[in-house]
Amino acid sequence: MSGQRFVIHGDFISTPDPGEVRIHENAYITVEGGKVSGIEKERPDTGPDVTFIDYKGKLIIPGFSDVHLHAVQYVTRGLGYDKELLPWLNDYTFPEESRFQDPAYGERVFNDVVHDLWASGTLHCAIFSSLHTDASILLMEKFAKAGLSAYVGKVNMDRNSVEELQETTEESIRETERFLEAARPYEERGILPILTPRFAPSCSDELMRWLGDKAMETGLPVQSHVNENQGEIAWVRELFPQSNNYLAVYEDFDLLPQSRTIMAHCIHNSEDEMQMFLDKDVLVAHCPDSNANLASGIMAAGEMIDRGIRVGLGSDIGGGNRLFIGHAIESAMRLSRLLWAESDHAYRTITFAEAFHMATAGGGSFFGKTGAFLPGYSFDALVVDDSRFTRYRPLSVFERLQKFVFAGDDRQIEARYRGGEFLPLPDFD
Amino acid sequence: MSGQRFVIHGDFISTPDPGEVRIHENAYITVEGGKVSGIEKERPDTGPDVTFIDYKGKLIIPGFSDVHLHAVQYVTRGLGYDKELLPWLNDYTFPEESRFQDPAYGERVFNDVVHDLWASGTLHCAIFSSLHTDASILLMEKFAKAGLSAYVGKVNMDRNSVEELQETTEESIRETERFLEAARPYEERGILPILTPRFAPSCSDELMRWLGDKAMETGLPVQSHVNENQGEIAWVRELFPQSNNYLAVYEDFDLLPQSRTIMAHCIHNSEDEMQMFLDKDVLVAHCPDSNANLASGIMAAGEMIDRGIRVGLGSDIGGGNRLFIGHAIESAMRLSRLLWAESDHAYRTITFAEAFHMATAGGGSFFGKTGAFLPGYSFDALVVDDSRFTRYRPLSVFERLQKFVFAGDDRQIEARYRGGEFLPLPDFD
Repeated sequence: MSGQRFVIHGDFISTPDPGEVRIHENAYITVEGGKVSGIEKERPDTGPDVTFIDYKGKLIIPGFSDVHLHAVQYVTRGLGYDKELLPWLNDYTFPEESRFQDPAYGERVFNDVVHDLWASGTLHCAIFSSLHTDASILLMEKFAKAGLSAYVGKVNMDRNSVEELQETTEESIRETERFLEAARPYEERGILPILTPRFAPSCSDELMRWLGDKAMETGLPVQSHVNENQGEIAWVRELFPQSNNYLAVYEDFDLLPQSRTIMAHCIHNSEDEMQMFLDKDVLVAHCPDSNANLASGIMAAGEMIDRGIRVGLGSDIGGGNRLFIGHAIESAMRLSRLLWAESDHAYRTITFAEAFHMATAGGGSFFGKTGAFLPGYSFDALVVDDSRFTRYRPLSVFERLQKFVFAGDDRQIEARYRGGEFLPLPDFD
Repeated sequence: MSGQRFVIHGDFISTPDPGEVRIHENAYITVEGGKVSGIEKERPDTGPDVTFIDYKGKLIIPGFSDVHLHAVQYVTRGLGYDKELLPWLNDYTFPEESRFQDPAYGERVFNDVVHDLWASGTLHCAIFSSLHTDASILLMEKFAKAGLSAYVGKVNMDRNSVEELQETTEESIRETERFLEAARPYEERGILPILTPRFAPSCSDELMRWLGDKAMETGLPVQSHVNENQGEIAWVRELFPQSNNYLAVYEDFDLLPQSRTIMAHCIHNSEDEMQMFLDKDVLVAHCPDSNANLASGIMAAGEMIDRGIRVGLGSDIGGGNRLFIGHAIESAMRLSRLLWAESDHAYRTITFAEAFHMATAGGGSFFGKTGAFLPGYSFDALVVDDSRFTRYRPLSVFERLQKFVFAGDDRQIEARYRGGEFLPLPDFD
């Protein structure tokens, strides 16, 4: 259908900029070549070659972007939230990730991860696999079958892991080359490799250097973690005494390529680091569910927005426990309100529209023109049947969106479109 | 079935005391007269008159108790979480509650509230209706049809409301008498009236005095709100200058009957108030979802538990947005972890078992012997089909419970039993 023209009818809402709400109620969007070409109040004249799709009275919203999650922690999400980050990694996460050496295990889990992303309306994601190359390619294959777009990272880690989950520097380099080669056939379907040093403590200087050179040489994007937890920050300071701060460790190894870097968490930042997010146009992956579950703290999201830093939302499965990005929107608002309350109002709260923007156009900015209904943008949309919430009395379109996010879940998502294509239930057989 | 004897087989888990986890994996519980009479590792000898119900491999947990919510805010849950408590009440909550003067509106909404409580596995609740007597009785009728137990309160408010939602002191008293009279037929089905001064600012001294006398004279329980928000606390201080603190306002009007009082929120407490919760054996309704949504702050749940104060969980619909009490368990843990992180570790975090206890035996203590699998306790249970989470590899029973709470929802609840009776899908026609 993407080469064709079609007209879609419904109640559209999106947030092209932080806090900017655009509503087109009972309107018609024309899609040509997979992109929005027009938005009209009246049904446009269409010839016999134009398909008309009527979602009258349904809410139509941009597809979600989840800019930080770990496919290989799907099984352990929800477990061990009595612990802090570093013990949680050692007791639950690393042992689980080591299981992905077995392709049969990966097959079982990834089928569900990708199905559930589809079900939850997450049409784009930036995802960590494990260090296993074959599992990482298998994950790409699943995304291809589901018609979703993704940046997939084979994780690099050549130190400070557990016995079952180790690679030498040489293996890490060789397997990354093999991964990049094997990833090529997926590129045309919007499934792309991303360099993924797990986090600075997991990578030797030599491996960081090699990855940075690779990023510079190829233009590949990078994803990693920064400033999640005080213990982690102190550890990085010990491991990399020559760098000015945690974020500068990545920069010192050329691992913050301009406008092509995602950094997860970004809670405990120095002034220099805040400036570097802006200068390097880093996409900050705000992961409020995970940050609360692992007692990491609260990122000052309002301050990020006010400084013009790009912010998206991450479910951070398995530090976070729910794939549906509505939960992350809910949590982003809640955490900002608790920070306001607990800091004696030193930090501002974020609005619903700002949080929704993070989940759509904000995170979406990493995947091209997506996340809003603007001419020239990819038609990536969810059709939401929210009649469950409006049967008592009429609600405004903006209220309906709030209800879907705060009281709904994937059960209300009736249809998904990416690049103008309807996405059927994934068939992995 | 409640008069009969039956044996039920499955994987049982409950938390009779805060933090105490009891697991009976692959075990058999005998139920007689609606109560647990035995728990065994081997299938007991049973005659032909004993029904055997096999839930092999399923998780069986106590039914949830939701000890604070507003039936008449179901439609507005999720709306206006950009606001603080007092503006939110005036802009969203009070206008919505005024609609319940129309019985047809109440009918539509209450069918869904009670259905959704049933679906979510909330077998007991303490719930606010509006000030309308007929709506409050209608709500009781719905609980009776669904087989759930509840304390239902017709709200009293004779001042500081909006134009559409007013009663004079005389009306409030007269309608409360009418409500108590009309509630009688429901008592034998476990649906009981509870005196419900909305919160101190909503009631004149005269009305508070009359309600306190009524509580003393009849032995009726009381539910209300306390110490939710700093603005509210300052207001109460102005309105009731003769009382030592907010909680003492209720005590001064005899509205804290011993062991028969539920107070919602309890965030910003003085030392005297903490002691009074204990002395009066108040059930604290901890409402973490609502407290985050409305920027109220974080209740120090660990400190409450350490002092021996009774704590249950409230969804606080519509300040809270989700009925499934698993979300409140999740939020209670998260808020305690954020308080720990943001207070420089001045407050302790709570464990999963403590949060689960609040949602079951803690809140359940207001409804008789329920919320744990102990001999003599009412068999109030949920059968959870969690095969969705265990199909990758085996998990322990305790891990399975965590998965259900953090990654599941009402979709996994396969059956509900209250007082030994199977609860079918409610039929309101």
